[in-house]
Amino acid sequence: MRFLALLTSAGINIGLCALFLMLYSILRKQPGNVNVYFGRRLAEAASRRSNSFSFERFVPSPSWIVKALEYKEEEILAAAGLDAVVFLRLIVFSLRIFSIAAVACVFGILPLNYFGQEIKHKRFSSESLDVFTISNVKEGSDWFWVHCLALYIISISACILLYIEYKSIARMRLVHITQDPNPSHFTVLVRSIPKSDEESYDDSVRNFFQKYHASSYLSHQIIYKTGKVQKIMTNAEKVYKKFVLLKASAIGKKCIPAVYRCGLCGAAPNTIQLYHNEIELSKKTDLDHSNSIRREKECSAAFVFFKTRYAAVVVSDVLQSSNPMSWVTDLAPEPHDVYWSNLWLPYRQLWIRRIATLLASIVFMLLFLIPVTFVQSLSQLDQLQQRFPFLRGILKKTFVSEIVTGYLPSVILQLFLYSVPPIMMLFSTLEGPISHSARKKSAASKVLYFTIWNVFFVNVFSGSVISQLNVISSPKGIPTQLAKAVPRQATLFITYVLTSGWASLSSEVLQLFPLIWNLLKRYIFRINNEQYSVPSFPYHTEVPKVLLIGLLGFTCSILAPLILPFLLVYFFLCYVVYRNQILNVYCSKYETGGCMWPIMHNTTIFSLVLSQIIALGVFGLKRSPVAAGFMIPLVILTLLFNEYCRKRFHPIFKSLSAVDLIEMDQQDELCGRMEEIHCRLHFAYRQRLPDDKDFCQGECSGSHELHEKEEDSQIIQVINSKSDKSEANNDGGQVGQVGNNKDCYKQSEKIIPIL
Amino acid sequence: MRFLALLTSAGINIGLCALFLMLYSILRKQPGNVNVYFGRRLAEAASRRSNSFSFERFVPSPSWIVKALEYKEEEILAAAGLDAVVFLRLIVFSLRIFSIAAVACVFGILPLNYFGQEIKHKRFSSESLDVFTISNVKEGSDWFWVHCLALYIISISACILLYIEYKSIARMRLVHITQDPNPSHFTVLVRSIPKSDEESYDDSVRNFFQKYHASSYLSHQIIYKTGKVQKIMTNAEKVYKKFVLLKASAIGKKCIPAVYRCGLCGAAPNTIQLYHNEIELSKKTDLDHSNSIRREKECSAAFVFFKTRYAAVVVSDVLQSSNPMSWVTDLAPEPHDVYWSNLWLPYRQLWIRRIATLLASIVFMLLFLIPVTFVQSLSQLDQLQQRFPFLRGILKKTFVSEIVTGYLPSVILQLFLYSVPPIMMLFSTLEGPISHSARKKSAASKVLYFTIWNVFFVNVFSGSVISQLNVISSPKGIPTQLAKAVPRQATLFITYVLTSGWASLSSEVLQLFPLIWNLLKRYIFRINNEQYSVPSFPYHTEVPKVLLIGLLGFTCSILAPLILPFLLVYFFLCYVVYRNQILNVYCSKYETGGCMWPIMHNTTIFSLVLSQIIALGVFGLKRSPVAAGFMIPLVILTLLFNEYCRKRFHPIFKSLSAVDLIEMDQQDELCGRMEEIHCRLHFAYRQRLPDDKDFCQGECSGSHELHEKEEDSQIIQVINSKSDKSEANNDGGQVGQVGNNKDCYKQSEKIIPIL
Repeated sequence: MRFLALLTSAGINIGLCALFLMLYSILRKQPGNVNVYFGRRLAEAASRRSNSFSFERFVPSPSWIVKALEYKEEEILAAAGLDAVVFLRLIVFSLRIFSIAAVACVFGILPLNYFGQEIKHKRFSSESLDVFTISNVKEGSDWFWVHCLALYIISISACILLYIEYKSIARMRLVHITQDPNPSHFTVLVRSIPKSDEESYDDSVRNFFQKYHASSYLSHQIIYKTGKVQKIMTNAEKVYKKFVLLKASAIGKKCIPAVYRCGLCGAAPNTIQLYHNEIELSKKTDLDHSNSIRREKECSAAFVFFKTRYAAVVVSDVLQSSNPMSWVTDLAPEPHDVYWSNLWLPYRQLWIRRIATLLASIVFMLLFLIPVTFVQSLSQLDQLQQRFPFLRGILKKTFVSEIVTGYLPSVILQLFLYSVPPIMMLFSTLEGPISHSARKKSAASKVLYFTIWNVFFVNVFSGSVISQLNVISSPKGIPTQLAKAVPRQATLFITYVLTSGWASLSSEVLQLFPLIWNLLKRYIFRINNEQYSVPSFPYHTEVPKVLLIGLLGFTCSILAPLILPFLLVYFFLCYVVYRNQILNVYCSKYETGGCMWPIMHNTTIFSLVLSQIIALGVFGLKRSPVAAGFMIPLVILTLLFNEYCRKRFHPIFKSLSAVDLIEMDQQDELCGRMEEIHCRLHFAYRQRLPDDKDFCQGECSGSHELHEKEEDSQIIQVINSKSDKSEANNDGGQVGQVGNNKDCYKQSEKIIPIL
Repeated sequence: MRFLALLTSAGINIGLCALFLMLYSILRKQPGNVNVYFGRRLAEAASRRSNSFSFERFVPSPSWIVKALEYKEEEILAAAGLDAVVFLRLIVFSLRIFSIAAVACVFGILPLNYFGQEIKHKRFSSESLDVFTISNVKEGSDWFWVHCLALYIISISACILLYIEYKSIARMRLVHITQDPNPSHFTVLVRSIPKSDEESYDDSVRNFFQKYHASSYLSHQIIYKTGKVQKIMTNAEKVYKKFVLLKASAIGKKCIPAVYRCGLCGAAPNTIQLYHNEIELSKKTDLDHSNSIRREKECSAAFVFFKTRYAAVVVSDVLQSSNPMSWVTDLAPEPHDVYWSNLWLPYRQLWIRRIATLLASIVFMLLFLIPVTFVQSLSQLDQLQQRFPFLRGILKKTFVSEIVTGYLPSVILQLFLYSVPPIMMLFSTLEGPISHSARKKSAASKVLYFTIWNVFFVNVFSGSVISQLNVISSPKGIPTQLAKAVPRQATLFITYVLTSGWASLSSEVLQLFPLIWNLLKRYIFRINNEQYSVPSFPYHTEVPKVLLIGLLGFTCSILAPLILPFLLVYFFLCYVVYRNQILNVYCSKYETGGCMWPIMHNTTIFSLVLSQIIALGVFGLKRSPVAAGFMIPLVILTLLFNEYCRKRFHPIFKSLSAVDLIEMDQQDELCGRMEEIHCRLHFAYRQRLPDDKDFCQGECSGSHELHEKEEDSQIIQVINSKSDKSEANNDGGQVGQVGNNKDCYKQSEKIIPIL
């Protein structure tokens, strides 16, 4: 690929980006799109739309950028929660580390690479991009210490920055935990309650906790079977019962059937009568009937509430029974975070589900090689021309060939990649997590592994040494193979940053799919209801994207420093766009308290070590044993640093510390708030059951997925009805002050008793 | 290797074995050796030696075998504890599974292998051993389903037996835990107590636990610095203090030094005076002085005692502080099990120590390749003759060559292997475990990895494809490589079972080193004291041995079934010898409650999977794709079984369950035993400090290592003094009934207040 091709690609992308952003700045001002671009704000406060026409609405303006940058971290923390802040921190960290890398590499390494060999440089614009990579430095050069030093600077500053981030995020997490009384801190999810013939699960739970944790046990709430399969089964059961009822009443009225006479093969004479009687009884005592159904639908899981936070954590941490497969306890997720339709899954299945989904993900990853290989072939023009001779005419045109090599591959790859997050989300759901956030976290790591494997490794290797999977079978050769392949593929990665990075950001800000759906709804289907579902932030797609770009940055920084300016632009755009989206579009329904950070930290360390190993291979290939030798302590130090962080910080992200909990408990006791908290606990976790209206005292609403959306819509409806009294806001976006997320919940509490 | 060579080797070994066992049966009757062969019994009860001469003493007799087999499992459990029973269970399991394998393989596979190819069989005695291996079956044979079936039978019965064993051992562990009040269940070891200027560690611990665990906290005991380094430092400090004292008194008496005048570079005028005053003060108040020393020697660790078992487990399981590197809590080991000299190690060092010893062990494993390669070269006669031409004459003799190929290699290997356990034990000590048992367990796994790597893999590979480490670098080819190499090395493994297995067993029963030491002590050095140190069972050497032989058995069973009869004899000998040793020689000072079983289980699963993978490779090489295909589900099923066991049983071996503990607590409360237990807790953990006699109220004795031995000797002395009243016992071995281990401790309690 030539320098000009890169510029073409960059030009197209900058154009597209500018266009999208301009479009956004116009579209966001249209009142019809307010639910697309300000879903979060709608949920928080109201904005009465003025449909009045003004010319200003159609003039692109960069004011939203300024607005997005205006907010302080504390305000975002208050508005969108810790998870959002952690995600923004990742972007800030990337900006910082790649600024350092850019200074070190563009001024130190780029000239070295360019003047590395005494070749005649062509006209700058038609120069091959390879002259900017490390492959242009001649073998055994004395200047490799500069590359070595640059990598040391990058690694050490990355470690320092990571440490600072980890520390401050851990501190923020502690503050977040100790901030407000959270019902999940008082609640333990008990699964795999042993079945007994004598007592129901309800009684089992009560007896168990009254016997062994009498001093701290408050109450409990059994979980009933829900989910789609259960719904079908319930319906089938109902139909069956009606059928039996019909038949029985028919029998009761008419005659004794023929089978009755046969004492050997037929039913015993009193069976049918008994059954009949049973039905009679059940008809009479509706209460008993509903009780028995309830007992049938009870599943071996329950939320158990405790008097103090410490007691709950103790019960969740300590092995309860001498059979580790029964009385399994975990701290409950937040009420909004509970993934109800997975709670009834038998605990004994979970380990095998986990293994099965792991295998399925691996198979999916390998199957995905097919489109990737196709994409790879596009970047090699001559191969393409051989395979499709009729294209030869078109491909001879410079502009077309530049588009095909520089732009098309990553667009196609991008389109294929769109299918990955939903599939991984499906796998994560099948795994049986108990909370939405755990499901999203699991999906995020799956997508992350997937993208790193399929975008980085497969692209690197299929283009060079092997199209098949030979490389995994010889781990010793990996550094050398990587060293050969990565510089060669550096240009592909630069275009990847341009297309996947920039373009996906602008499509993110434009919210293409919701926008189209909104337009369709309003102008084609003519649906004009006020119920909007506010999406929660898609961490499982966005975190892997940002981390992958970071990986490309680290691995390419000293090999092909030309990637760094593009990266910096990308991360700056990221910063602006995601701030805007977090503040305006997405609603944070639940909090993990920054639990995504360890994934981000580990991936960054992986990227660092990978880039060091590649550098080791490159220095080896370039016959610079000293520089290669200096890489080994760097790898070891980076791994030791990671190990230290894992010891020092990771436990905080896995469980809560006794000291903090006890202090919170003591404070609440002193303030006399405990009683109030206990009262609220009983309403915190309420399961909506699909059909049996006797079960839930409150309103029932369809299946679980629906229920959540409906809840949001109810919130919005109430806010809307309130908003009539509030001031109209013509800006269309900056609705009042940044509301507090908790206020939003408190408002909702008045309508639906959810904490 | 020919069949005759194998017979020669077997003959030599059987002869040696018989000789050793005969020697043992004579030597054990000699009163002078009673402390070598009946150390355990001596510690339990007394035996007055009659030095009267009788002819019977010099007649070999198999009576000890009968006696060893007589005991029931319950008796061994009562006498030697659960760990010993678990070890014997491993042997019983091996006996069972290899009996099944022997039936399946000797009758099913051996004839198939022998008549696998239509070659002319030579005279039976000079037949090459290869005709008994799978390499004799011709490619693409239709009879591989027999091998496949045999492996299925072995794998499935191994899994069933493993499950039964795991279940019954888990049950025994629960019984063991709930049996007796154990001070370790009430005690938590707190490490990494944060340093503060205001208060001593002692006060810190008291304040922390009184603040956060007031309801359950009983008392605590700070740990003081000990160990050899500390001893040297203490001495140096003392000398320094004496010197300062001398100097200061000189200053006090005589003059103001020259430096005093210089206000700029000299010390401030009052410094020395102050120092002097301090010394004066310290001389006056000896109590204060000892307190300050004590405070200096306090280290950031303490044993904290709790009122109930449940409280202790809760504190040990829950993360205490929001800094996971401070207030680290673990359940304390048993009082006899505490490894005092490691307790003062700073907790922050441990993770880096662990990594360092891991690396050191790996380096040691790789360095050990050198002697192994040498041994390997011995079994290839022609290479040896080329390298040492002067040997050609000797090596031409059939007998010599048979000894060299069939016997010498494994003897040399064996000698080298003797150095491994002490080195691994050293590594494990440096790792910083807090208990003797943890140290031994860690050493056991290190020795296990070492022997599996160095005996199995290196022997397999260096003899065939590679002398260097090529094989690790291509994991895909491993099954094929193994399939090529293992059948070829099967004869070496048979001789290994003969030499390492049989011979090491007879040397174990003969207790060669203690015997020689005893003789030297009595007849050369003329030491005739009554203090014996009773050794504890060397799990770290014996468990890996048995597991390695098991690994060889599994991998060779279908490839070279000729190994199985030798294995069965080995395991039977094992059973007799170890029962005898456990009952007579070794004393179990501490209990892990069967914590070695998970290691044994995992290794057995590893052996099974390895043998399945090898079979997969062999079937692939032999062009039997159907048989190879049938191996894959077997591997998957075995791994799934292991995963199930890990979920179902492993947590019990890592922590104690709340239900059991609470029930024990409640029972003790009801019986009113709690007060008594609390009283005994205070004396349970007593640290002996090397020099400061003020520290410990009881008797102080040398360093820790000495202290333990001395304790045992005291026990023995007391028992001896008691024994004068008891009946004399001429048998020289079978002293009274099998005593109860706890009685032994109870007796010792009367002398030294250790629970």
